[in-house]
Amino acid sequence: MTADPAPQPGWLDELTDLLGQRVSTAPAVLQQHGKDESYHAAAAPEAVAFVESTHEVAEVVRLCARHHKPVVPFGVGTSLEGHVAALHGGVCLDMSRMQRVLEVNAEDLDCKVEAGVTRKMLNTHIRDTGLFFPIDPGADASLGGMAATGASGTNAVRYGTMRENVIGLTAVLADGSVIETGGRARKSSAGYDLTRLLIGSEGTLGIITEVRLRLHGVPEAISSAVCSFPDMDGAVSTAMMVIQSGIPVARMELLDEVQLDACNRHSGLTYPVQPTIFFEFHGTDASVKEQAERSGELARECGAKDFEWAAAAEHRSRLWAARHDAFYAALALRPGAKGWPTDVAVPISRLAECILETKRDIEETGILAPLVGHVGDGNFHLVLVIDPDDADEMARAEAFNDRLVRRALAMDGTCTGEHGIGYGKMHLLEMEHADLLPAMRAIKQALDPAGLLNPGKIFGMG
Amino acid sequence: MTADPAPQPGWLDELTDLLGQRVSTAPAVLQQHGKDESYHAAAAPEAVAFVESTHEVAEVVRLCARHHKPVVPFGVGTSLEGHVAALHGGVCLDMSRMQRVLEVNAEDLDCKVEAGVTRKMLNTHIRDTGLFFPIDPGADASLGGMAATGASGTNAVRYGTMRENVIGLTAVLADGSVIETGGRARKSSAGYDLTRLLIGSEGTLGIITEVRLRLHGVPEAISSAVCSFPDMDGAVSTAMMVIQSGIPVARMELLDEVQLDACNRHSGLTYPVQPTIFFEFHGTDASVKEQAERSGELARECGAKDFEWAAAAEHRSRLWAARHDAFYAALALRPGAKGWPTDVAVPISRLAECILETKRDIEETGILAPLVGHVGDGNFHLVLVIDPDDADEMARAEAFNDRLVRRALAMDGTCTGEHGIGYGKMHLLEMEHADLLPAMRAIKQALDPAGLLNPGKIFGMG
Repeated sequence: MTADPAPQPGWLDELTDLLGQRVSTAPAVLQQHGKDESYHAAAAPEAVAFVESTHEVAEVVRLCARHHKPVVPFGVGTSLEGHVAALHGGVCLDMSRMQRVLEVNAEDLDCKVEAGVTRKMLNTHIRDTGLFFPIDPGADASLGGMAATGASGTNAVRYGTMRENVIGLTAVLADGSVIETGGRARKSSAGYDLTRLLIGSEGTLGIITEVRLRLHGVPEAISSAVCSFPDMDGAVSTAMMVIQSGIPVARMELLDEVQLDACNRHSGLTYPVQPTIFFEFHGTDASVKEQAERSGELARECGAKDFEWAAAAEHRSRLWAARHDAFYAALALRPGAKGWPTDVAVPISRLAECILETKRDIEETGILAPLVGHVGDGNFHLVLVIDPDDADEMARAEAFNDRLVRRALAMDGTCTGEHGIGYGKMHLLEMEHADLLPAMRAIKQALDPAGLLNPGKIFGMG
Repeated sequence: MTADPAPQPGWLDELTDLLGQRVSTAPAVLQQHGKDESYHAAAAPEAVAFVESTHEVAEVVRLCARHHKPVVPFGVGTSLEGHVAALHGGVCLDMSRMQRVLEVNAEDLDCKVEAGVTRKMLNTHIRDTGLFFPIDPGADASLGGMAATGASGTNAVRYGTMRENVIGLTAVLADGSVIETGGRARKSSAGYDLTRLLIGSEGTLGIITEVRLRLHGVPEAISSAVCSFPDMDGAVSTAMMVIQSGIPVARMELLDEVQLDACNRHSGLTYPVQPTIFFEFHGTDASVKEQAERSGELARECGAKDFEWAAAAEHRSRLWAARHDAFYAALALRPGAKGWPTDVAVPISRLAECILETKRDIEETGILAPLVGHVGDGNFHLVLVIDPDDADEMARAEAFNDRLVRRALAMDGTCTGEHGIGYGKMHLLEMEHADLLPAMRAIKQALDPAGLLNPGKIFGMG
C-alpha cells in the first residue's frame, strides 16, 4: 500500500482522502485483484480499496459514480469465469476486512455476516451452537462472493444452493444508496424478490456488503461411503436411482477414472482406478444406516462390487479433502499446465448420456480433462488441463467447451450449473437464453444506467 | 358472451377480431373478473379475453399496448389483497382455458403446465406416477396465479413455497415478447434469476402463461395428529421447539380457540375449544412414527394433555377439510358479515409474543378475528369478520391491521408472509421496505414503461 510518487488523478486523491492507507496502487496488489482461479486473462484494476463497512462501500461507489470509474467487488478471488477481472479498469472493492459475524439467532436458525466472512470462518464461529452452514463450493469462498455468484457445491443436493439459503442482503446500489432486502421471517410475499435478483448477479446490479443466511442443525449422525463401478454407465445410473427413489443423500460426488487416478496420486489414496462415487449421508443413526443400505443396494444392482463405509470422522475428512483437492490433483497430472474449469447441468435422466458423449468427445479431441460431478443435481465439471501458450490446443479446448454446452442445451440443460457466466461464458449464455437478454439488459440499465458495476460481465449491453 | 349492440371502440373490435366469441363484455362476467376473495372493493375490467395459448396472450398484450389499455391476468380469483381488481379498466386475461398439462417428466421429478391448471387438477393428472405437487394454499388456485403471487400454504414448512418449487416460467412481457426462464436442470447460474423476479410480481412485470414445477415423491407413510393446549403460549412454544429440534414436520397448523370453535360448528367436529395444533408427518413408516412421538413429547412438556393420532386416511381428510374451510367457518360465526383476511410472519422465536399481543389487541379492539397459523413458518392469519357498511367498525379494523403489521415489523417480521401486496397492503409494504421501492419502481419502469401490466398493484409509481 505505497503511495504513488507521481501526481495522482483527482479520483484517486479523493479515494485516498476517504480511506487513507487502505487504498493501494501497488502493482502486485492490483494484479492479484484482477485474477480469479480461472484460465481467463486477468485485468488489473487501477486501485484497490480495502473497505471496512457498508458506509465506506457506499462512499466509494458514489465517488466512482462522480468520476465515471467502474467498481468491481472482490471476495477471495476463487471464482472461475473471470468474474473479478477489471476489464474496464476502475476500483476494486476488496471485502476481506469486512469479516464480522453480526448476528447469530440460533433459535431461529439464521445469522447475518459481513460479505468478507468466509464459509469456514462462519462455521468455526457457530460450532458451539449445534448449527452449521452447509453450502460448500470447495474453496473457502467469502459469503458475499458466494451470494453474488449464486454458489452451490457438493451438498446442494440436500441443502439447496445460495438461492435457497440466503434470506436477505444488504447491498449498495449504483447510486450509492443502501438497501436491505428480505428479512428474518422464514417467508415473505412483500414485493419483488430483490434478494434472489441480486444472488447470481455477479456484482453487476449492486455490491453485496452483508448477507443473512439460513443455518441448519448439525445432523446427529454423518457417514460416508466410497463405491467403485466397472463403468461410467453404472455409476451414473446409481446416482439417478438414488435421487429418483428419494433417498435424502447429503453429497453424491462422481469422479471419473482419470480424476480418481489424479486424486489417488495427489492425496495418497489407493482406490481402484474406476468411475467412483463418494457418498455422504446425514440424519439420525437409524436413517443414515437406512440411506446407506438402500444406496448400496442400488449401486450393486448397477454393477458395483464394493461399497466401502467410512463412518470414522478421520477417514471421512481425508476422503472429502481429496475430493476438494480434485482441481489441484488434475493440474498435477501435467506439470506446468493450467486448468480451465467448466461446468454444465442437465436433467438427471439425461446425465448418463451427456457424460458418456462428453467422454467420447474428450477422447476424440485428445485433451486431458478429468471429470467430477455433483451428480445428484445433474451437474458435472471438467478441468481442461491445457497449455495456454499452445494456440492450437487452446482452439481445440474452446471448440470442445462450446460442444459441451451445445450438448447440454440439446438435453434441456444449462451452460453452467454453478460457476456462473463472468466474462468466460457470455456467448454461451446468449446461446442458452437469447430471449432473456433484452429483459436482463433492461434491468441492468435501470439499476446501473452508467454501467459502472462490474462492467463487461454476464452480457454485453448490445 | 353477448356482443354489445352499440358501436364498439376500436380496441374492442380488434380484440373481437382476434378471439371472436371468446371476448366478453357482459356485465356479470366483467364483475366476476374484477373481484377476488378479499374484502377490497372490486373493479371490473372493460372486457374479458378467454385466451387459449401463449401466442394469444402475446397478441392481446400487443393489442393493448397499441391502444394503451391495461392488462390484468385472472386465474381463479382466490387472491386476498385485491390483486385482480382492474383499477384502471382495460382487459382481463382469463387463463381458465389454458389447462393443459404439457409435460410430466417423472424420472426428473418435474412437469410443465399451462397457467390455468389448478393444483388439484395437476395432482389428479399425476396421481399414477407416485409423485405429487405439495404447495397447498387452501384454495384450488391456478398454478399461474400461485406463481404470480408466490403462494405457499400449509406444507411450505417442509416443501418450501412457489419460490423453491417453480423451476421455470413462460411469460409474455409488456411489449408482447415471449420469454422462457429457467429450465429443466435442477440448478443453473446462467444470468439473472428472472424466474424468481416474476414469482410474486403479481402480474406487474409479465403475464405468466406456463409454469415448470418441481414434483415430489408421495411419501411412503402419512399420519396426522391433533393436540389441544390449555393456553396459547404452550401451543406456540410446542411449534417453536418442533422446528428448532429439526423434526421435518410436513404441516403444523395452529388454530386459536375462536377458530377451533368455528371449525367445530362448521364441520361438525367436537374438539375441545382450546388453542389446537393440527400436525401432519410424511416419511417412511418408522420416521413418521418417530416424528409423531417426538412432537407428542414436546407438546406434553408444554402442557398438552392429549395428542390424538389420525393415521386413518378418512379421519385425516376430514381434519384437513375442516382446516381448509376455516375461512368459511369464521364467516359463519356472524351471518351476513364479510371476511377481511390478513397475514404477517415473524421469526419463530418471536411468534408467541406476537400472537399473544395480537390476541390482546383483538380483545381491546372488540372485533371478531379468529386466528390460524402456519406456525412452522412463523406465519399466521386472521380473518377480521366485519360489516363493511359499518364505517366505525371498518376504521377500527383498518387501525388494527396497521398495528398488527407494525408489531410484526418491530419483531423483524414482514407485512405479509404469503398473501402478497395487491392493492390492499401497498402502504404496509412502504412501511416495511421504503428503501427497496426505488429499485422496484426502476425495474417496473424498465420492463413495463407504459405501466399497463396490472397497474396500481404492489406500489405506486411515485
